[in-house]
Amino acid sequence: MSKRSGRSTILPENSISVTAFAAVGGKKEGEGPYGRCYDYIDSDDYFGQSSFELAESAMQGLALQNLIEKRKIEPEDLSLILGGDLLNQCIGTSFGISNFNLPFLGIYGACSTVSEGLLLASLLADSGAADIAAVITSSHFCTAERQYRFPLEYGGQRTPTSQWTATASGALTVERGENPPFIRALTVGTVADKGITDANNMGAAMAPAAYSTISRFFKDTGLSPKDFDAVVTGDLGNVGSRLLCELAERDGLSLKDLHLDCGRMLYDQKNQDVHAGGSGCGCAASMLCGYFLPEIKSGRLKNILFAATGALLSTTSSQQGMSIPGISHLAWISAEKGEI
Amino acid sequence: MSKRSGRSTILPENSISVTAFAAVGGKKEGEGPYGRCYDYIDSDDYFGQSSFELAESAMQGLALQNLIEKRKIEPEDLSLILGGDLLNQCIGTSFGISNFNLPFLGIYGACSTVSEGLLLASLLADSGAADIAAVITSSHFCTAERQYRFPLEYGGQRTPTSQWTATASGALTVERGENPPFIRALTVGTVADKGITDANNMGAAMAPAAYSTISRFFKDTGLSPKDFDAVVTGDLGNVGSRLLCELAERDGLSLKDLHLDCGRMLYDQKNQDVHAGGSGCGCAASMLCGYFLPEIKSGRLKNILFAATGALLSTTSSQQGMSIPGISHLAWISAEKGEI
Repeated sequence: MSKRSGRSTILPENSISVTAFAAVGGKKEGEGPYGRCYDYIDSDDYFGQSSFELAESAMQGLALQNLIEKRKIEPEDLSLILGGDLLNQCIGTSFGISNFNLPFLGIYGACSTVSEGLLLASLLADSGAADIAAVITSSHFCTAERQYRFPLEYGGQRTPTSQWTATASGALTVERGENPPFIRALTVGTVADKGITDANNMGAAMAPAAYSTISRFFKDTGLSPKDFDAVVTGDLGNVGSRLLCELAERDGLSLKDLHLDCGRMLYDQKNQDVHAGGSGCGCAASMLCGYFLPEIKSGRLKNILFAATGALLSTTSSQQGMSIPGISHLAWISAEKGEI
Repeated sequence: MSKRSGRSTILPENSISVTAFAAVGGKKEGEGPYGRCYDYIDSDDYFGQSSFELAESAMQGLALQNLIEKRKIEPEDLSLILGGDLLNQCIGTSFGISNFNLPFLGIYGACSTVSEGLLLASLLADSGAADIAAVITSSHFCTAERQYRFPLEYGGQRTPTSQWTATASGALTVERGENPPFIRALTVGTVADKGITDANNMGAAMAPAAYSTISRFFKDTGLSPKDFDAVVTGDLGNVGSRLLCELAERDGLSLKDLHLDCGRMLYDQKNQDVHAGGSGCGCAASMLCGYFLPEIKSGRLKNILFAATGALLSTTSSQQGMSIPGISHLAWISAEKGEI
């Protein structure tokens, strides 16, 4: 049996390994400081397709294909796949994975989707419900921009707090296993809503959710920031990252020296015009699968908390003046196994 | 450990009970043949709110409140909740449950969401990851109509194969337990896409997915239709139900006398103008929570297969001429426990 620890944290019973990971990205992501971490970079973000939506699905297909090859299995060896994306009704994923003929569970956590997938995949692998559980997610700048904001052709002015949706996909497999990276604990996020209504400031909307989950993890486990090499968030960007550290500071928790944010890392903020940083399901997913998991596998990082962050808004909720609920799910990913 | 049986079916290790269930509906649903099965019926479908979207969220809140009262617990006794709906980015659920301050995992399976939730909740309860896992889903005629089709004021003509999105929400709790209804097996669905492109004929789009999952369950377990009192689908409606039985018949599997479809049951097809039947996440969810689970609890039904069905389309995919992928997840719900 997995063990519950505190309100929201779950400790797997078995040794749970992330056994393979793959990342695929667009041109701009390839030109960023982590461009070398991708398994494939597309030259024009169309991935050989005729629409941006088909391109996003093709990108997911490529990530999944790379994952399957790197794990040295056939698609039918995957027990199931968990996946989702930002498009209405998650069509990026439905069309992206449908050719693989896999048992599929759709999940939606906005940009926290990769964390939610990692959490559920780890628990299903732990319980024996899955032998090899896969996770996939993606975002595409061009599909997100026209769905959430403006037609690309309009060339709308972006505000300083706005973030750049990554064109990227990340995929991984989780199994009971004896090799790092290990999944040592998982914290399920709670919806946090502090009343932010500016859809161009999602970092501020998500920071309270990230803080709620990260502080909950420490409370649930009795561990503290000094036990970790890094506390990684998904896409808080410059604004949200500052807010997260401030929220933590107020409670006497110092994250400043440990905190990394995939949204701040993905692009070169000096030379790539992304304003407050990167965002999108693919931002955290590709940084996890392209950079953090390999770093832990190699032992260069020993213990990280990975908490992707999602803003649960829609254009309808924004147009109706609703606030932006945030959520963040967390995984403790480690180069070592063992009890807390 | 839970046991995998065949490609897609999972047998819980422990005795898994659905310990409480609640259903809330709109006016039309209250006037239907199962109107008496709802815990609450709203008189004007606004649920005291100023927009249809807020109404859908309020309806979810009511279903969850009823569930918590029927289970005689406080919200904080729920280990986590799984939920989703049809609205873009699942805002019905994000706003519906946010006041309850619960660990939340967003899921998306279109109208199959209640099955997906039941599946994951059962597996998480089985493994000890959750002590009490809740599931919630909803749909609202007025939010769905204006999101997927036309503004309500337009009064668009509906085609004969079109279905009526139910204004309804269903919620349930799953735990390790010794009282019926028991969850004996779960089959994860695979995306099935036979090329149907008519968004007004979702029954036809979903029937292959339902058949794929139901036939997979029989193959995975060695059981056959004669072991069940009913094979229940979510919202195939008149067209999809006929297709499901035809697909089964071709393989020598007779479902005709066993098959029930929530979409065909929810409304009085003679006197309530719904064309091919009901649909929406709330259709299968409210029939499950309002009718089928009580029937099994009382022993009037002994064994059913419950396979809600989802059409994974969006307005974007339809406008781009894409086909409609379908999915269906299945639970064997029983008045008795025991091995297969």
